[in-house]
Amino acid sequence: MNAFKQLSDLSAIGEASREPRSMAIIDMGSNTWRLIVVEYVPSLSFKVTDEIQEQVRMGEGMAELPVLRPAAMDRGARAAQIYAAFCASSGIHEIHAAATSAIRDAQNQKRYLARIEKETGIQARVLSGEEEAYYGYLAAMNSTTLANGFVLDMGGGSLQLTRVEDRRPVASVSFPLGSVRATEGFLKSDPATPKEITALTEHVRAQLKSLDWYKREDGMSLVGEGGNVRLLARLAQRRQNYPLDILHGFTLSYGQVFSLRDELAKLTVAMRRRVPGMKAERADISLAGAVVVQEVMRRGDFSELTVCSQGMREGIFYEQFFGAGGDEAPPMFEQVRRASVLNLCHLYRFQENHAEHIAHLVLSMARQIPAHLREFTEDDFDVLWAASMLHDIGVSIDYHDHHRHGAYLILNAGLPGYTHRELALIALMVRYHRKGTPDADDLSPLLAPNDDARLVQMVALLRLAEQIDRARDGGVRDVTLTCTDTVARMQLMVTGDEHVPLWAVERHRDFFTQAFGMALDVIPVPVDE
Amino acid sequence: MNAFKQLSDLSAIGEASREPRSMAIIDMGSNTWRLIVVEYVPSLSFKVTDEIQEQVRMGEGMAELPVLRPAAMDRGARAAQIYAAFCASSGIHEIHAAATSAIRDAQNQKRYLARIEKETGIQARVLSGEEEAYYGYLAAMNSTTLANGFVLDMGGGSLQLTRVEDRRPVASVSFPLGSVRATEGFLKSDPATPKEITALTEHVRAQLKSLDWYKREDGMSLVGEGGNVRLLARLAQRRQNYPLDILHGFTLSYGQVFSLRDELAKLTVAMRRRVPGMKAERADISLAGAVVVQEVMRRGDFSELTVCSQGMREGIFYEQFFGAGGDEAPPMFEQVRRASVLNLCHLYRFQENHAEHIAHLVLSMARQIPAHLREFTEDDFDVLWAASMLHDIGVSIDYHDHHRHGAYLILNAGLPGYTHRELALIALMVRYHRKGTPDADDLSPLLAPNDDARLVQMVALLRLAEQIDRARDGGVRDVTLTCTDTVARMQLMVTGDEHVPLWAVERHRDFFTQAFGMALDVIPVPVDE
Repeated sequence: MNAFKQLSDLSAIGEASREPRSMAIIDMGSNTWRLIVVEYVPSLSFKVTDEIQEQVRMGEGMAELPVLRPAAMDRGARAAQIYAAFCASSGIHEIHAAATSAIRDAQNQKRYLARIEKETGIQARVLSGEEEAYYGYLAAMNSTTLANGFVLDMGGGSLQLTRVEDRRPVASVSFPLGSVRATEGFLKSDPATPKEITALTEHVRAQLKSLDWYKREDGMSLVGEGGNVRLLARLAQRRQNYPLDILHGFTLSYGQVFSLRDELAKLTVAMRRRVPGMKAERADISLAGAVVVQEVMRRGDFSELTVCSQGMREGIFYEQFFGAGGDEAPPMFEQVRRASVLNLCHLYRFQENHAEHIAHLVLSMARQIPAHLREFTEDDFDVLWAASMLHDIGVSIDYHDHHRHGAYLILNAGLPGYTHRELALIALMVRYHRKGTPDADDLSPLLAPNDDARLVQMVALLRLAEQIDRARDGGVRDVTLTCTDTVARMQLMVTGDEHVPLWAVERHRDFFTQAFGMALDVIPVPVDE
Repeated sequence: MNAFKQLSDLSAIGEASREPRSMAIIDMGSNTWRLIVVEYVPSLSFKVTDEIQEQVRMGEGMAELPVLRPAAMDRGARAAQIYAAFCASSGIHEIHAAATSAIRDAQNQKRYLARIEKETGIQARVLSGEEEAYYGYLAAMNSTTLANGFVLDMGGGSLQLTRVEDRRPVASVSFPLGSVRATEGFLKSDPATPKEITALTEHVRAQLKSLDWYKREDGMSLVGEGGNVRLLARLAQRRQNYPLDILHGFTLSYGQVFSLRDELAKLTVAMRRRVPGMKAERADISLAGAVVVQEVMRRGDFSELTVCSQGMREGIFYEQFFGAGGDEAPPMFEQVRRASVLNLCHLYRFQENHAEHIAHLVLSMARQIPAHLREFTEDDFDVLWAASMLHDIGVSIDYHDHHRHGAYLILNAGLPGYTHRELALIALMVRYHRKGTPDADDLSPLLAPNDDARLVQMVALLRLAEQIDRARDGGVRDVTLTCTDTVARMQLMVTGDEHVPLWAVERHRDFFTQAFGMALDVIPVPVDE
């Protein structure tokens, strides 16, 4: 049922099923245990509303012997206790608990899970390496535009690699090469000795060599998930004073990973804690993380990877969100970018009719301006559409200054599937959709060379559309635009009163002229409904 | 029915009646026409979701002759057309249109309103001076803590003054002394001549002198409403680089008004437009506004006024929101500050049980710390309560960094009834409720001398409460605190498991000690449910 593969129109969802539900997903990893609560309306919208993270270090001491240690088990039991009490008091009954690498490989696995269930009621499912890879793949499919390439997911205990072709998983593998495991197994000194680092490096290379399907082909990209990738991204962003506080969608280059590995290799664990952006509790395992990620990129010949901040937890959620059973197509959005925008629209205030009509008018105008008379290209139409749909979401914070609030929401909630450049352009369009001179300011580093000119033109179209639909009644059904070098002749296809739109556009034509260098000539054309 | 006078607990409202409704209020003023759309759940929450403002200048040319001019009437008709089309397309059927000064005094009033109704379907009600004053008073009662004093509301056509005793209106008056009227009648030159300004000043004094009830008594305050007061506040804030972008609740001093009047008197209209913060369309009427407001403050012997950004429009809304009919008590919140906090809680994500329990624990601890061992006072308990209730609302933007988002929401949505200093403290408590060293930063100018120390202590209590209720299950029902100079003995009244709260508090005791200088000794005490 294709309806499940796209965020539906509100009209297609009955009132009763718009009641949001909550689901808790507990990721019992080798390093960190994480509970997330996702509030969702099936097929409509979702958002993480809570997260409780505990440094459990489940995999501690398992490098020598695949047995869960008492101290680690106690830490896990206490975390599980917190989670159980939390879910009970929050009225969350749908709980999906999944255990991965450390517990998966432990000889005392069954007894430990029985203890957890007895003490807390939580029934944890142990994921195989393939299952863990699958959920990581699902998360990537639903939050990035990866169609052909690989998904790398590196945790504390294991590393998963999945080959994707046409959005389908065609091969996957799980190695016991997580950062906790690798650190305990190879980097025992502080600082790690060159010999130790070399041993780890060669071990990783040997593992990767055994995969004949892991090699980059034309058009392939690499998506990276897991705490180690996220940490490297943080460190890289901090080094370059990155203007966005978003890891998802960030492009991490091989050069940055190389350089970070180099830096971390020289430092003791205590000194690593002082590296800007370092998370104190990850300092000891950060070098192993850098080594492994670098080798994966090197082996696959990827000069960059796209960071995906979602992972197994979200993958489990998506499987539930799209509904199980019967459907052959995997549970994922057909169009991730479109889904991101609609998700944000539904989560915040969203006057559906007005926003969609504005988007229609903006794209209509954009398509009718000849390429040589505009700076933006068809590649930017997605940005035009997103900004039009989202331009009023700031009202959910406050009507006053809602243009600023909208930009804040977009830059903080993010739009999975869009690049950071596109995110910045969308936020700037929303920021300037009413008045003011568009100024990229702090976000400039994210923009392409000619983006300032593109931005001004795209903002001009959005403002024009707002004026055309000032009465918010869709009265101007469409516009036609005929452009020469000097003048743009715009016909407003008006179904009702023509005076209001004419007069509204009249007062804002100057910005259009400044942006495009064409005078604006507006003619109303009465049409039937 | 007292339930209407307080924002109700969610539990008291049936599911069906939580469906938000929309109401449009059209203020047909002498200067600006404004439509606002308020979305509300009766007795629960409300928020302005749209605003369409038109510079109609209805009162143009009426200084000589009380007749609406053709150009003004056409502008009004077009604005009404926009509003009608907007409401129709937005599905808003509840429309309250109210006409004030210019239309009220016009000889061609009836014919004009008939024209409006014929052309647009909008039936406008003409408010008498008393009714206009009453709605301004209602707005002040529901958004400020004024109990005894005066409400000043200065528009384009008229000025209202209402005397308030024990929250009741005991006298009111309306003068045809709005800024458009005053400018056209007295300040005809550009720049205005000293003689003209004197004539206006003396006219205002004469009008005010005729009011024997307008004089300040002990404990009385002055609240100011209307576009002219808001403009003066903007100009004053801009001059002092005010760190908050909120007019409501701002304290405008007589000295600032005096100084602004002085500055504006010297400038031509064109030059006034360049005064930082000036709204171009108000430049011509700004001097008259300053003169009148100054004289009102002078006559009443008020060295400051509190700006109220709400007015007649909101007053009309409140009358509807609280429900008409039968009740003798006027339609207003008994506790404005409490209502503001609950309003924000209900508009954004709000885990009611957890937030209320945190508030309970925080206030319990606060009350048990002897006055000589703490920096904050009982006056700050409201701030402690508000911050506890609001600490998680940022999740509605994004879970990641929700402490920052919460502070952003509070500083942008505002909390009517709280002073700007309190607003800053609440936002800072929310900003730092998880980690980090509290730093007032930009907001420092709003704080009192010892607020940094108070803030650190209040944050310490909030963090402690969060840890005590880490499992979010209210398991620790209460705490007792016995303090000496060196140690605080805290007993946790635990109904269930004690290990989790103990262990959670354990890891965060340092901040408490830093804040209060007392070591923290925690003992669990099992109690029955």
